[in-house]
Amino acid sequence: MGLDHAATKPHEALASHLQGKLDEVNVLIRERMASRHAPRIPEVTAHLVEAGGKRLRPMLTLAAADLCGYAGRDDVKLAATVEFIHTATLLHDDVVDESAQRRGRPTANLLFDNKSSVLTGDYLFARAFQLMVETGSLTVLDILSNAAATIAEGEVLQLTASRSLKTTEEVYLQIVRGKTAALFSAATEVGGVIAGVSDDQVQALFDYGDALGIAFQIVDDLLDYQGDAKATGKNVGDDFRERKLTLPVIKAVALADESERAFWARTIEKGDQRDGDLDEALRLLNKHGTLEATREDALQWTAKANAAMAQLPEHPVRDMLLALSDYVVSRIR
Amino acid sequence: MGLDHAATKPHEALASHLQGKLDEVNVLIRERMASRHAPRIPEVTAHLVEAGGKRLRPMLTLAAADLCGYAGRDDVKLAATVEFIHTATLLHDDVVDESAQRRGRPTANLLFDNKSSVLTGDYLFARAFQLMVETGSLTVLDILSNAAATIAEGEVLQLTASRSLKTTEEVYLQIVRGKTAALFSAATEVGGVIAGVSDDQVQALFDYGDALGIAFQIVDDLLDYQGDAKATGKNVGDDFRERKLTLPVIKAVALADESERAFWARTIEKGDQRDGDLDEALRLLNKHGTLEATREDALQWTAKANAAMAQLPEHPVRDMLLALSDYVVSRIR
Repeated sequence: MGLDHAATKPHEALASHLQGKLDEVNVLIRERMASRHAPRIPEVTAHLVEAGGKRLRPMLTLAAADLCGYAGRDDVKLAATVEFIHTATLLHDDVVDESAQRRGRPTANLLFDNKSSVLTGDYLFARAFQLMVETGSLTVLDILSNAAATIAEGEVLQLTASRSLKTTEEVYLQIVRGKTAALFSAATEVGGVIAGVSDDQVQALFDYGDALGIAFQIVDDLLDYQGDAKATGKNVGDDFRERKLTLPVIKAVALADESERAFWARTIEKGDQRDGDLDEALRLLNKHGTLEATREDALQWTAKANAAMAQLPEHPVRDMLLALSDYVVSRIR
Repeated sequence: MGLDHAATKPHEALASHLQGKLDEVNVLIRERMASRHAPRIPEVTAHLVEAGGKRLRPMLTLAAADLCGYAGRDDVKLAATVEFIHTATLLHDDVVDESAQRRGRPTANLLFDNKSSVLTGDYLFARAFQLMVETGSLTVLDILSNAAATIAEGEVLQLTASRSLKTTEEVYLQIVRGKTAALFSAATEVGGVIAGVSDDQVQALFDYGDALGIAFQIVDDLLDYQGDAKATGKNVGDDFRERKLTLPVIKAVALADESERAFWARTIEKGDQRDGDLDEALRLLNKHGTLEATREDALQWTAKANAAMAQLPEHPVRDMLLALSDYVVSRIR
């Protein structure tokens, strides 16, 4: 999910604007992921938490709180919370996906073992939970516990749905909310909640995070079929080879004739893939114009994100967040 | 962890006394483990949640609340919470341990796959968290988030410590708190908290759960070396074969001469086990009297549990809880 190939980098502008708070978040993360009793824990997490992640989710929380004029210190705790939840889901995702690389480094479960990854993920969830409790806000706890349930539900849904040709765009959206958007929207929403802004503004912050997360994931799925491997760090066709039914394919299946349907059933549902199948898949996506249609969807979600953000008061951070959602889709221009 | 070989069964007396509430807990569990979007989830959990577990942890919460005169309905929510946390840890433990049996049935990860077990466990954690938030008690949330951290920390600690001869009785106790006692003590403590009893009584409830959980686990570890396989459902020596450094062995290592130490280093640390090694291990445990010393420890923890319980007001449930801790150690008479 590289955000670093263009000249303008709104996440860097945000990081620079929020630097003081981000430093506090990093200190808190290091402090809280330590374990007096189990030194294995920071060993496992360090390479994930320290590995130059963009801290996108914590920045969303800090940005939302800043934009809403928040002057307290709970934004730092909640920013660390969302990063812990994110890292925990990465650890659990790595275990189950047997994926070999994450951010260009070996995944935790290759460096360590599955056991350590599962249990360390659990530890980070518990630490996240403790941090939220410290804010004393039941609304925040409600939002983040719901997000945690949506994340887990989406991941399980993906297990059963992602290889079935019956999967609809609606189900895809639920999966995407679980994978990405639920934590983005919770991250922005809690920033507004602790700042005590109106329900409408909290809703707008939620809507922004939700739409940004969906756009972000759609772009990621699109780049899997048309990205430049050097820029994105992904190989074209990984999702196809892993038999993941993402939006371009779902749209193509909906438009497929009988023989095309048989092709998707063989390659995705049955996993019987042969030389030349990826080229054929790309030909079908182009034939039905589903890469272009998927790109349109991403642009629509970006427009929704920006419409929501426009409901918030003028503020330099608001402009940065508007630029951020434009930037996300600029990767597919 | 069978509790069903003796004539007197205090957990059955408790279950009978709490039957109405337990029925409500079961209804709530079924309701909340359902997932509109991911039908795989109840498939994975059903055989664990329905499989005739004794509901020991939920009973501890209901019993503590009842004993403290609680008249509300949050006890049911918190009882379901602790069962969800327990089930989630079983799911995650099964994944990582590759254990083949749990309560006499195939484990979730053999019936399903590791992926489903990890992610469904995460879903149950999130559901547990939502239930706690519904009680609106920050004290309860604080207690249970701390318990969740202790559980995960203990499990990770076990990974690194359980095969090292350097592991002390103090470390063993931390592991046992993570495995068993942290959830027992949280279960009893929150029952008192929602009933609004004094800090001293809340502390006594915590101490009872903590000591009961430790006694329970020590007995389990002892039965692994001297149990009757028919009564306990465990094979003698499983822990030895899995190279788990439990209390009888820790005590024997502390008293070992040079050649005995070499034996433990070879069999536990290096995992080089040969025919006759289990017999030799048992001979060393008997030589140093560590099975008897471990039994004495279990009795002391039971005495601590009962001393704590004695600080609570007279009540039929108090007598049942006193009988319960006596019963736990009666398995090793």
